[in-house]
Amino acid sequence: MVRGSEESSRVSKERAILSATLEELAQTDYGSLTFERVAARAGVNKTTLYRRWETKADLVRAALTSVAEVYRAGPTTGSLRGDLMRIGRATTQFMLSFEGQCILRVRLLERPEPELAAMAKDLQARSLGDISALGRAAVQRGELARESDMMVVSELLGGALYTRLVMKSQPATDAVLSHYVDMLLHGVAKPKKRRAR
Amino acid sequence: MVRGSEESSRVSKERAILSATLEELAQTDYGSLTFERVAARAGVNKTTLYRRWETKADLVRAALTSVAEVYRAGPTTGSLRGDLMRIGRATTQFMLSFEGQCILRVRLLERPEPELAAMAKDLQARSLGDISALGRAAVQRGELARESDMMVVSELLGGALYTRLVMKSQPATDAVLSHYVDMLLHGVAKPKKRRAR
Repeated sequence: MVRGSEESSRVSKERAILSATLEELAQTDYGSLTFERVAARAGVNKTTLYRRWETKADLVRAALTSVAEVYRAGPTTGSLRGDLMRIGRATTQFMLSFEGQCILRVRLLERPEPELAAMAKDLQARSLGDISALGRAAVQRGELARESDMMVVSELLGGALYTRLVMKSQPATDAVLSHYVDMLLHGVAKPKKRRAR
Repeated sequence: MVRGSEESSRVSKERAILSATLEELAQTDYGSLTFERVAARAGVNKTTLYRRWETKADLVRAALTSVAEVYRAGPTTGSLRGDLMRIGRATTQFMLSFEGQCILRVRLLERPEPELAAMAKDLQARSLGDISALGRAAVQRGELARESDMMVVSELLGGALYTRLVMKSQPATDAVLSHYVDMLLHGVAKPKKRRAR
């Protein structure tokens, strides 16, 4: 009982530290981020951070990875439509979450700091790996012609959600997601009437 | 001859002022933007600005409108595919232009200043009007089922280009645009084999 509550307090403290790291990163920049500032923001002692992470890079990587884990695409649901809806929902939750908004504000992929850029690249590669795996599964089921199409579809879907949620502050309900996904699956062009009938 | 060269110098001076306005807006904010700062950045006399625009709002609106005019969708090319390619090319040029990058940095649609938010809304409404007109034309030609589908397609296309060009700094060549547009037109799902054959 006591052991369990100690463990849950450790986990919630770690979560607070990683969240404070992202917030600090979004409000200052990688160069100015220090263990002192993160500790102050999380309301913990600096030594708590040093005990767990050796360098600033370790801390920031842990913060970014923890968020990426929560919102990653995961294994296939068994259908291309199901997978796209799940990607859409996970992307929506990510973009609306506090951590997601910090990461979007950091504009990770545009950063000039080599250490941070390398982390962003790692995370992107992992996410692309997940998407590829879903594409392979869809090809195997005969639902998709090329694995690489999955990448293009997820670019279109992710971009539309970014525009809608972040730039326009409009909601992305399941109905909106369904509309996007159906259009991506079947296209918007009206099928031409058959000539010979 | 002299008249023509005076006219072209007036036009290029106006362009420099409007461009400096956007740059100033991107680097400070609407509240801190002044005629003095814009004039200094454009290398012109402050009175030149006062002669042409009465208020700060007039100046900023002129700057935003001039960019919107350059990159607006325009009348239909005669086919849905042609229109989508043109929207894609205009969006790409906008996002890669100096003025476009200033406007994207301003994050117009997220701004809290009511005066600026109202301008952004006006411009957005005009752009949506253009897109709707293209949608109507496509419906009339029998290429599209619903006018509103055009809005969803342009959200998907614009979002994908933003992700690609701005967030990932990857190029959007005509080949990439074609890939996006064909997927939006015809969908990614592999057509099911006919059952009875």
